[in-house]
Amino acid sequence: MNVSFIGSGNLAWHLAPALDNTAYRVIEVYSRNRHHAKALVGRLYQADVKDSLDFSTSLSRIFIIAVSDDAIVEVSQEIVLPEDGILLHTSGSQPLEVLTYSGASRQGVFYPLQTFTKSKKVDFQDIPFFIESEDDDTRKVVLAMAKSVSRKVYTISPDQRKALHIAAVFASNFTNHMLAISRDITRDNKLDFEWLKPLIAETINKSLTLAPDEAQTGPAKRGDLEILDRHLEFLQSDETIAEIYRVISQHIVDRYSS
Amino acid sequence: MNVSFIGSGNLAWHLAPALDNTAYRVIEVYSRNRHHAKALVGRLYQADVKDSLDFSTSLSRIFIIAVSDDAIVEVSQEIVLPEDGILLHTSGSQPLEVLTYSGASRQGVFYPLQTFTKSKKVDFQDIPFFIESEDDDTRKVVLAMAKSVSRKVYTISPDQRKALHIAAVFASNFTNHMLAISRDITRDNKLDFEWLKPLIAETINKSLTLAPDEAQTGPAKRGDLEILDRHLEFLQSDETIAEIYRVISQHIVDRYSS
Repeated sequence: MNVSFIGSGNLAWHLAPALDNTAYRVIEVYSRNRHHAKALVGRLYQADVKDSLDFSTSLSRIFIIAVSDDAIVEVSQEIVLPEDGILLHTSGSQPLEVLTYSGASRQGVFYPLQTFTKSKKVDFQDIPFFIESEDDDTRKVVLAMAKSVSRKVYTISPDQRKALHIAAVFASNFTNHMLAISRDITRDNKLDFEWLKPLIAETINKSLTLAPDEAQTGPAKRGDLEILDRHLEFLQSDETIAEIYRVISQHIVDRYSS
Repeated sequence: MNVSFIGSGNLAWHLAPALDNTAYRVIEVYSRNRHHAKALVGRLYQADVKDSLDFSTSLSRIFIIAVSDDAIVEVSQEIVLPEDGILLHTSGSQPLEVLTYSGASRQGVFYPLQTFTKSKKVDFQDIPFFIESEDDDTRKVVLAMAKSVSRKVYTISPDQRKALHIAAVFASNFTNHMLAISRDITRDNKLDFEWLKPLIAETINKSLTLAPDEAQTGPAKRGDLEILDRHLEFLQSDETIAEIYRVISQHIVDRYSS
């Protein structure tokens, strides 16, 4: 079955070749940046660079929008599909309905939960894919495609996908931001962030092996208000950081004292 | 050189045998819980269980307090040391001065930056140790002992240790708490926390390999206020979680937009 990609970013960079290695054939790549499209085509068996979003005469059946979240609406407004073409987006945060602009008769979500980097090889087998579609036949087609690259494919509801994306924001974006703040503190106090890396690795390892609640330690967990006060005093030069410290610590204190 | 341990928790469980494998000999273990002391003694070459904190006739030179932070003062008030005994605590958060209660002539901090679990083997070689002492000779003795088990030994100031501990709270306790909240969200929405684990592992891996700022993604990083609003609406049933979402997201928005 033929597939076309709209977008040539980090996700398309890995997903298109992965599909190309199964029963699917990626035959077209469109990107606002033609150079990027060309580079991705170079990773595929028989694909061509597509210069416009007019796919009305395309031999593809499946069209995968793999662009940044804020560009999906624009693509959906511009794209022209062949009759019966299936239009998919790959976003965790955008509702299925953003695809309605396209007038495509069949629409769905094809969301791999992972962060991608061009330079880093990806094994899709262990990456969970989440499928959403209001149309049974479309869902079957998309499920089959997802299962061709991953062992972990799930159909979820729109509300579940929203919850999953919020859970991912806490688990990925916010954990990473805690590391960014930690790094700032080391830098501002002439300490080396390297020193924290074994602790970070072991904490995450423990948290994922046991469970976050069992891996929790520290002054807030112990309810040590004296140390929390001392830390807040230390952080007072930056109100926002102090506020972040305060709300998270309070939440930990409440969670483990009750 | 002979060493005595006060405490038989997760840290002592690993540190005492590690020292025992070098030129140091752990000869006594005291613990409020005699069973725990006995279990730790079983991991050592020639140690005895000590039944009181009166070490006045001890053959040890170094006394390591490895108890929970809130018990250090109490131990320091009760302990009796031989003349010239060196008293150390292993805490990141307690000032050196809490040891003053002991009247020990030589005091220091011997702080390994890691989280320990009894069931999990530890390689101290890569764990950074932070040494603090007001007395040059004591510092030399403690530095030598730390270097016997770790390749990463640093002398730091009291203010630096405080900053390091706060950085560790963000990097370890708070990242772990983000995972706890994430897990709650999956549970409350009939999702499986397992699905997030590849994303979490990859995010931390990227953050530690590149840098947290380069690894950041998500709606707040992109300044996508529409999605942030939708997420806040979703989270409104729990005011504290919504507040945590709001302050961290705002901080990310400000950081990457300026």
